[in-house]
Amino acid sequence: MREPKSLFITDENIGLVTDLYQLTMAAGYFQNNVDSTATFELFVRKLPEGRSFLVAAGLEQALHYMKTLKFSDGAIDYVRRHPSFTNVKAEFFDYLRDFRFRGDVWAIPEGTVAFAEEPLLRVTASIIETQLVETYLLSTINFQTLIASKAARVVLAARGRDVSDFGSRRAHGPQAGVLAARACYVGGCTSTSNMLAGRELGIPLMGTMAHSWVMAFDTEEEAFHRFYEVFPKNTALLIDTYDTIRGAHIAKRLAKRLGATDRLRAVRLDSGDLLRLSGEVRKILDDSGLDYVKIMASGDLNEYRIDELARQDAPIDIFGVGTEMVTSKDQPALGGIYKLVELEKGGRAVPRMKLSEDKVFYPSRKQVYRFSDSSGVYTHDLLGLEGETAGGVPLLERVMEKGEIVIDLPGINDIRDRAVGSISGLPLRFRDVMATEPYTVKKSERLEELRRRTEEGLRGSNAANPDLGTTTATTT
Amino acid sequence: MREPKSLFITDENIGLVTDLYQLTMAAGYFQNNVDSTATFELFVRKLPEGRSFLVAAGLEQALHYMKTLKFSDGAIDYVRRHPSFTNVKAEFFDYLRDFRFRGDVWAIPEGTVAFAEEPLLRVTASIIETQLVETYLLSTINFQTLIASKAARVVLAARGRDVSDFGSRRAHGPQAGVLAARACYVGGCTSTSNMLAGRELGIPLMGTMAHSWVMAFDTEEEAFHRFYEVFPKNTALLIDTYDTIRGAHIAKRLAKRLGATDRLRAVRLDSGDLLRLSGEVRKILDDSGLDYVKIMASGDLNEYRIDELARQDAPIDIFGVGTEMVTSKDQPALGGIYKLVELEKGGRAVPRMKLSEDKVFYPSRKQVYRFSDSSGVYTHDLLGLEGETAGGVPLLERVMEKGEIVIDLPGINDIRDRAVGSISGLPLRFRDVMATEPYTVKKSERLEELRRRTEEGLRGSNAANPDLGTTTATTT
Repeated sequence: MREPKSLFITDENIGLVTDLYQLTMAAGYFQNNVDSTATFELFVRKLPEGRSFLVAAGLEQALHYMKTLKFSDGAIDYVRRHPSFTNVKAEFFDYLRDFRFRGDVWAIPEGTVAFAEEPLLRVTASIIETQLVETYLLSTINFQTLIASKAARVVLAARGRDVSDFGSRRAHGPQAGVLAARACYVGGCTSTSNMLAGRELGIPLMGTMAHSWVMAFDTEEEAFHRFYEVFPKNTALLIDTYDTIRGAHIAKRLAKRLGATDRLRAVRLDSGDLLRLSGEVRKILDDSGLDYVKIMASGDLNEYRIDELARQDAPIDIFGVGTEMVTSKDQPALGGIYKLVELEKGGRAVPRMKLSEDKVFYPSRKQVYRFSDSSGVYTHDLLGLEGETAGGVPLLERVMEKGEIVIDLPGINDIRDRAVGSISGLPLRFRDVMATEPYTVKKSERLEELRRRTEEGLRGSNAANPDLGTTTATTT
Repeated sequence: MREPKSLFITDENIGLVTDLYQLTMAAGYFQNNVDSTATFELFVRKLPEGRSFLVAAGLEQALHYMKTLKFSDGAIDYVRRHPSFTNVKAEFFDYLRDFRFRGDVWAIPEGTVAFAEEPLLRVTASIIETQLVETYLLSTINFQTLIASKAARVVLAARGRDVSDFGSRRAHGPQAGVLAARACYVGGCTSTSNMLAGRELGIPLMGTMAHSWVMAFDTEEEAFHRFYEVFPKNTALLIDTYDTIRGAHIAKRLAKRLGATDRLRAVRLDSGDLLRLSGEVRKILDDSGLDYVKIMASGDLNEYRIDELARQDAPIDIFGVGTEMVTSKDQPALGGIYKLVELEKGGRAVPRMKLSEDKVFYPSRKQVYRFSDSSGVYTHDLLGLEGETAGGVPLLERVMEKGEIVIDLPGINDIRDRAVGSISGLPLRFRDVMATEPYTVKKSERLEELRRRTEEGLRGSNAANPDLGTTTATTT
């Protein structure tokens, strides 16, 4: 009998966490002696509907990947034996064996608000290196940015009440749960239920009890009391297993017995009309002087339901949010792409773009410049060429040089603080969950001019990508 | 400078891949000497909108987890030092140190069609064990079942044309990409682009080239030719980088030069009006006797677009599907839940249920019986008690006994074959992507009677869950 497979990602197999075509293209470049320096930018063509901004996230895991990526003997063996690679020369596999990512990487720091067309990441390296890292970078940045952006909306809707991530069970597999916990915290959540995120990242943990706990005892009284005995300093009671109001009265009696020394921390509602029930439960507690007992609510919550509850002043202190946040349920994918924007040819940097219907993008290495008014509120962003002196605060910073990380990696709380600050710079109208107006991202004149010339060159010539002789600096 | 975190799941940290409350409840049960045998069932209360069936998937990774789950010293240390566990006695941490999952597990085999309310998995063990495994089991079964079910729809829409999973870059992190590749294959896809899924599972790999490859050379001719030289037996050309029709003519000229020995395998369209373009490209190829060159199409495809293309006889041989399939974009979460249905009390098995508004479910250990007509087409399922002799084919089988796997784990092709067979047993009207009619899942009389009695007992008594004296067998 064979053993079951874990399908964990490990140092041994990480080289294979990619699409087949990245390795065939790598072999193709290698065998054709194409080793030009290339620059790729990772960006989102359009914000998902219902999103007015993104919160950049996932850079740390992207850096981990680029710093540690190796091709193990087992991985190389698998590639070599694959029928696609029959005609690939042995030297390519030697290349893979010695492979280290040695490129330069610029990025918008995690926790920064960003918009469509703005490069979240820019990678400059030999074209083989840039190509090999594409799939993993996209899956890492796309997902965490998606979730941090969704979480930021949920947190904004909660208007200062705590939001806790409860989503691990509905995340897209075990690792997605941990990555989502990280991204939710970046987006402003105050805690997570995911223990591994707690240990690895220091995110505060939150948990109450399941219905099964209540059902495992003969009475709710007993279930509550038994839990309290083990966790006297940190008990939150789930009161809706049979009847929420009855549950609230039972919780109230226990809380009164505990009194002020071992204060009952909270009760949780997980079903029914949360507005009505939270009001009734609050009254039951307050009438007994238990104003310090918090009310937590959960159950298919998202930013719209929370917005409604908050507008109606539901006395809910903590929202536990799961499925909708960790899958970004209304928009479960971020269409981040990774595009070749510049290629060194004969020592000169040549801008690149493609002309596929509806899929054009701006060529060359770019920078995002953010402009604010005198009170610090953003007025607009400007997408320009790297090194333009057009004013504004440049957002992309160098994070990796020749394969080495050159920044002090911020802690998760620094990233979260940055997100809080960055979101608070947004004009108010973009912070509403119903916002639909797009934020203004202008293009610099130099960038528009370069795009025009590149496009004309492509359309006017039989050559697909003529060397246009640009003014941008060479990359080496 | 600290090192970046991978956030990989490993044998060392797997004990922490769970929600905080699973560990607090475990400590609570332990300290209160509650070690009854409990049975939990994992099921979906309601199918997601737009789904007429599920394809069970993820069991192998669930079994891997239950078989290998341990709490490392580092994990135990973290739990012990966490403020929530201040009052938890040392014996609980000894218990964790020796922990192995020793329960019995029944499951609907992977690749089997299933419906709402039907247990996909049933776990019987000490209540601590059943509780500790909840989060991981849910995240594993929920996700793979979600994706296999989505993939099955895409494959049905393609009406016999190949469907290849291209979604890794948009999956919810690197591991989700591998898990999705597995689930897509279970659901009927013919290949994946994910190399790790290729090596670990033997799923056939598929890949073409990226736009960046085409853009890296001065002309499309050169880009195509250079690729062909390295991969003469396996070249698929991406022809839409600048202009699809021009690209098709260039591909045609290369294919004619190659001739019949090194046949060009395929061309790929990734943008524009796929119906019109595939028709024009097919004609360009056929007019040159290149009827053997296949046409592959990709670009934001889902079952609805593929259904439309297939109905209109678009000459597309292979669909490359990414984002929409690996995130199950229209329904990105499966609401699988894991509920206590039976608890041993004084040597007798007592059925359990909860009464939360709109969240009731059937108590006790259940089995699913599938009924078919004389031609093998399913007529309905019957949800009944385990061991009922009501006819039909029972779907849940014992997969684990005392923590040991007791089945020969099927290979991925066996699972896929089972899915093909199981889906073909569905009445035609459920195999249409527009199907909305729900499949009939009846409840056995004995099950309805048990539910009635359990509910009456709960509502009529102050005790939350009175021992009702049932007729089900004891669990020990």
